[in-house]
Amino acid sequence: MDNFELSGNIEQAQNFLESIKNGRFLFSFVISYTETCEVPGITFAGADKNSIKFTPPADAEYLHYGYCKSIDKIPMTPDGKPTPGVLTKTALESSSISHLTINAGSKVVPQLPFIETGLPSGKNISEQDAMTDSIVSHAVDYGRIVGRNLASLTDCLIIGESIPGGTTTALSTLRGLGFDAKVSSSIPNNPVELKNQIVSSALERIDSDHPYSIVAKIGDPMIPFVAGMLSSASAVSKVMLAGGTQMTAVLAFASKIGFNEENAAIGTTTYITNDQSANFNSLVEKIADIPAISVDPGMKNSQFPGLKAFSEGFAKEGVGAGGCIISSMLKSGYDSSKFLEMTEKEYHRLSTSQ
Amino acid sequence: MDNFELSGNIEQAQNFLESIKNGRFLFSFVISYTETCEVPGITFAGADKNSIKFTPPADAEYLHYGYCKSIDKIPMTPDGKPTPGVLTKTALESSSISHLTINAGSKVVPQLPFIETGLPSGKNISEQDAMTDSIVSHAVDYGRIVGRNLASLTDCLIIGESIPGGTTTALSTLRGLGFDAKVSSSIPNNPVELKNQIVSSALERIDSDHPYSIVAKIGDPMIPFVAGMLSSASAVSKVMLAGGTQMTAVLAFASKIGFNEENAAIGTTTYITNDQSANFNSLVEKIADIPAISVDPGMKNSQFPGLKAFSEGFAKEGVGAGGCIISSMLKSGYDSSKFLEMTEKEYHRLSTSQ
Repeated sequence: MDNFELSGNIEQAQNFLESIKNGRFLFSFVISYTETCEVPGITFAGADKNSIKFTPPADAEYLHYGYCKSIDKIPMTPDGKPTPGVLTKTALESSSISHLTINAGSKVVPQLPFIETGLPSGKNISEQDAMTDSIVSHAVDYGRIVGRNLASLTDCLIIGESIPGGTTTALSTLRGLGFDAKVSSSIPNNPVELKNQIVSSALERIDSDHPYSIVAKIGDPMIPFVAGMLSSASAVSKVMLAGGTQMTAVLAFASKIGFNEENAAIGTTTYITNDQSANFNSLVEKIADIPAISVDPGMKNSQFPGLKAFSEGFAKEGVGAGGCIISSMLKSGYDSSKFLEMTEKEYHRLSTSQ
Repeated sequence: MDNFELSGNIEQAQNFLESIKNGRFLFSFVISYTETCEVPGITFAGADKNSIKFTPPADAEYLHYGYCKSIDKIPMTPDGKPTPGVLTKTALESSSISHLTINAGSKVVPQLPFIETGLPSGKNISEQDAMTDSIVSHAVDYGRIVGRNLASLTDCLIIGESIPGGTTTALSTLRGLGFDAKVSSSIPNNPVELKNQIVSSALERIDSDHPYSIVAKIGDPMIPFVAGMLSSASAVSKVMLAGGTQMTAVLAFASKIGFNEENAAIGTTTYITNDQSANFNSLVEKIADIPAISVDPGMKNSQFPGLKAFSEGFAKEGVGAGGCIISSMLKSGYDSSKFLEMTEKEYHRLSTSQ
């Protein structure tokens, strides 16, 4: 447990970790898309605008195959910073945690078997509503079904996501639901201004205080779907929301539709919880009485600039990295330096195989 | 165990039942389609030709919701004989066995979350090849992935199917792979002649002894997909192929690509194993050294003609009914008369709610 930083209800955090450490884990990876990511400068997920839509399926393919099929390299920035999926992949492999991919609105379907939900991608909230109220209902209903199904097969359901532009829709959803949120980003010089402009214009469209209407206007399909998963899964098993800002938006919406706080926690990296541009832990505390657990992946000591970048504010979280590292450390009992060693081995394999 | 009839390797059958009776079960329901079912008179699955393609998704919806969404009643023949899904639903519900739907080529997708494989429907083998060799490879590869994923989440993976016209493609696949098979059917007066005509014409197209080529020409997408599931799942958990003739075709193809016989069994109803028009047990013995386990669902004592029909040779098996009843009896310890009582309750609910 020394590897983790606990925030919020500390005793609940310790009980949560204690209760899952000898159990079975299942990682569910939810891929989605919001056209908001097409606003220039909003995200670096994916090298350029045309490739952004391939990032979620490519992350899913990489986790499964160890390489991508939709694109010829793993998702990487122009200057070679890899997807946080490298951390997730290392964590899952090192402790044999199985995983399933769920398509909740990705523009491109992954080239592997996946759980289909029939959800469309989200529209660009700077221009129009993200989706209709009935799509939100569909997302919540199907999320509840998938959450119940998967929770019945494990002791701890880890839920991660990949949705380019998702921090912006998360920010607007949080604000729309009444939480004063600052939001983290996958870019060191967080384009806060641009995001605030988009969010402000989007917030003007809100004409109802019904959470379904709010998320329909300014959210994305991932948020109501994962909230639905949390609401049903937390009734039967432990659930770890694995992620940063996006998962606080999920938590905010889930707090409106209801879920079992006793069985829930949010797990992320210290790159998120120590991010000065955001206010992660206090935000989680404002939203719900669940623990926030964070882990230091140890990348600051990496010999590879591409991995060291994670500790310098680049892609601090994503693909459920933090929650998967926490679960993996609980299951296999290693520490951050061992995790760094394994991650460098994987990063080296990728660099030499591509 | 008194509820079951064992055939093949009896000791292996007893060990198989012993090893799973205290474990966790997961039912995977594979839905598919072969245009061969559109040959007039070949099948009664679904009331008429236009509704046949809705039978697999409707079965999936019924298992999940307790009613159908793609059609307004549960799959039923014109004279009111229900889908064997009624037996499956009763078995799964009574012992809380969770299940997942897998789409392996259904013409219509179910209105619930499901595992997507990207497989197309099979063509009518009386007119052309069912699919290409590369589709067979895709089916096997994706089947292996899904089988490995699901087997890692349970102690016994039950695999059932719903593919209208599937007994005909199963018959041709068995013959094509060198097994002298008589095939059961969902119709009491089994249209053996019609099926033999279709199969004979299809067999003439075979120009290679490669199993992939044979199933591509005269099989259906479900067969290589489920065989792939069996091959990977049997490496990590017990696997029960839940079905009649179709599962013998799966077994025949799986015996060519390889699987772990120690962990496999075929589970069905005594309506199949006692069917004089087929030769189920001896066929299984010819194909592989795995036990055949059958159960009497007890429908012959039903007060409802629609249920009694199952014992009179109508829809003797399907939707994994036999294997699910066996698993459910193992888990909950009830007998055939109790099962009949529960099934009549469910059948009554359906009759009064529609």
